[in-house]
Amino acid sequence: MFDPSLVALRGPLDPNLIDLGYGYPDPALLPVEAMQRASAEALRRFGSNMLSYGANAGPTPLLDWLRVRLGGYDGRTPAPDEVMTTPGNSGALDQLLTLFTQPGDVILVESPTYHLAIRVMRDRPLELATVAADEGGLRPDALDEAISRCMHNGKCARALYCVPTFNNPTGASLDLARRKAIVDIAARAGILIFEDDVYRELTYDAPAPPSLWSLDERGVVLRMGSFSKTLATGLRVGWLTAHRDHIQRIVDGGLLDSGGGHNHFAACVVAALCESGEYETQVDKLRAAYRERRDALLDALQAHLPAGCVVRRPGGGFFVWIELPDGTNTARLLLTAEAHGMSFLPGSRFFLDGGGEDALRLCFTLYAPEALAAAASRLGNALRATPAQNV
Amino acid sequence: MFDPSLVALRGPLDPNLIDLGYGYPDPALLPVEAMQRASAEALRRFGSNMLSYGANAGPTPLLDWLRVRLGGYDGRTPAPDEVMTTPGNSGALDQLLTLFTQPGDVILVESPTYHLAIRVMRDRPLELATVAADEGGLRPDALDEAISRCMHNGKCARALYCVPTFNNPTGASLDLARRKAIVDIAARAGILIFEDDVYRELTYDAPAPPSLWSLDERGVVLRMGSFSKTLATGLRVGWLTAHRDHIQRIVDGGLLDSGGGHNHFAACVVAALCESGEYETQVDKLRAAYRERRDALLDALQAHLPAGCVVRRPGGGFFVWIELPDGTNTARLLLTAEAHGMSFLPGSRFFLDGGGEDALRLCFTLYAPEALAAAASRLGNALRATPAQNV
Repeated sequence: MFDPSLVALRGPLDPNLIDLGYGYPDPALLPVEAMQRASAEALRRFGSNMLSYGANAGPTPLLDWLRVRLGGYDGRTPAPDEVMTTPGNSGALDQLLTLFTQPGDVILVESPTYHLAIRVMRDRPLELATVAADEGGLRPDALDEAISRCMHNGKCARALYCVPTFNNPTGASLDLARRKAIVDIAARAGILIFEDDVYRELTYDAPAPPSLWSLDERGVVLRMGSFSKTLATGLRVGWLTAHRDHIQRIVDGGLLDSGGGHNHFAACVVAALCESGEYETQVDKLRAAYRERRDALLDALQAHLPAGCVVRRPGGGFFVWIELPDGTNTARLLLTAEAHGMSFLPGSRFFLDGGGEDALRLCFTLYAPEALAAAASRLGNALRATPAQNV
Repeated sequence: MFDPSLVALRGPLDPNLIDLGYGYPDPALLPVEAMQRASAEALRRFGSNMLSYGANAGPTPLLDWLRVRLGGYDGRTPAPDEVMTTPGNSGALDQLLTLFTQPGDVILVESPTYHLAIRVMRDRPLELATVAADEGGLRPDALDEAISRCMHNGKCARALYCVPTFNNPTGASLDLARRKAIVDIAARAGILIFEDDVYRELTYDAPAPPSLWSLDERGVVLRMGSFSKTLATGLRVGWLTAHRDHIQRIVDGGLLDSGGGHNHFAACVVAALCESGEYETQVDKLRAAYRERRDALLDALQAHLPAGCVVRRPGGGFFVWIELPDGTNTARLLLTAEAHGMSFLPGSRFFLDGGGEDALRLCFTLYAPEALAAAASRLGNALRATPAQNV
């Protein structure tokens, strides 16, 4: 499936293992031919302007297209000075941490939260503190409480990092009331929100709720979007919408002043692809394929998991979150599951300070429906092979 | 020349201004057609592996090619675990600052030094301290002294940032004795060297001296190289050679763990271009063109500048550094020069703590020889139009 000399892998490739631990798009669905056409068209059209230092905010053709696109599927259209390109959401988060935090600041994160974002934060002299979530996602009352706790301890809560739409790992999306409450709490407390909005376009049942950014009238939300999940993870091209002062701070920062716009060459290829209309085609294709996969996995889990397992149904994104009956330790279950020919990520990976030992995350985008059904069956067998008290 | 909707510019384009302030390659020399062939070939050959999360260290085909290439023009060939890709030198420096410094650390920089690297550092809670240079570049005795001063003040000198080969802004290259002395001083003091080696391939008279990295037996030098100046600045593809422990620290860091290899898509295009043999063709072409331009500029400066100006002759790179007679303030001269139809960067930009007021930097890579000669003539006229005490 993957060539290990080119692709980041979790470990040695095992053709007998259905590995739902990868949070990867299916290579078979990636737009190789559209990228061929877009690369040729971009170099033809932009010529040496594509090979020179890119404009700090990103290529205008891409930003113009993005504004129209966002106006169509989010709560509001960014003004020209409210949007810029980024090197994908990991690189965007890295830049936000450099420019908008100070050593010793507290960053609040959902619990559970995207485990690799935590690693980006832990490479810096920051403190992390958790905010509890439930089936509906991040709890506003828990945010209020976490901010108070910081103040009580004499700490500065600088920002909240969250994935409010089709969450990684739980798949949950905040409803409108929670979105408004969270933006309001952050604005009143004077903290920023780093909104990771990477799954917004991959919605399978209904339009995604408006972003926190679109509901923010006081300039506290910096919303990170990306072409990683819709076009290609290897591009490292994403975008940020935020208050013009925040955008200007990044555009005028040392990194872009020295190197020019983030990933200018790849961003120009994306601009050509988007303008050709092939972006919409690709997103429609992914939505249909991933919807089918999500449903195939959910159906198979219902058929094969023993009673007492709680399977969360995501409205979009990449992941299904499962809570197993009390006493099941999924870090230990993993060994049995791999012996049965399937893998997953144990829930504890997504919790900073304990928790999630009885949960696990499955990714449904990398494999075809038949493989997902087989993986669910194998997971059921693994669970039945080891009574709860022993796994 | 440039399309401002795509390219980072210093200000509004003025067709009557010959602006030698830009440190840019000439767009007319950029390999647009070779990049067209390489993009098509890379997508054909690597397919979806080029669009997936890239291997954290970078695509193996590019790293393999790099190792051979470096073995041919530097003092030693890196082992497979001593090299990785980066998002160009600005992004590489940014990552090194994240992973190898602590808040409050002192970073030592040459004086003068690359002004935009300083801006990357100033976006962080670091202290900067200068190390004096002379016509031969960074002075080892001044490095020793700067480290002692830090210790005396109870500060931690963490790293030295320097451009030892075809320096920006002075064009100077350290001789072998200074290189060895600087590596030795750093190793004994326990500080790292962030070696900015972006101009190595652009040598016009003789092979470049060996890198500090190639002379380092104790793992203190992290050497940043790039395809920005040899292929295209907009690619944001560079590479790092360093001790395997340093490479591993970055490869295992949060940013790459989350996003995969830096700029995987563009790095795969570069791999295809390099393997095709077109890299050598392009470097040969640039060397010939830039040598002619350097010589045209130096000849015209000799013909047109008044007596008392000291013009440094660079053996490679992008820049000519000029020291004007005492009393000439180049920040003020700039206004007169621009009124005469040419521009430059005043020397004071490259000094952290004063100095360089009587110096200026000219870039000779962006314009054709005729334009460079005209710029030198205009600079001479500007100097003569304003007696030293008045400029």
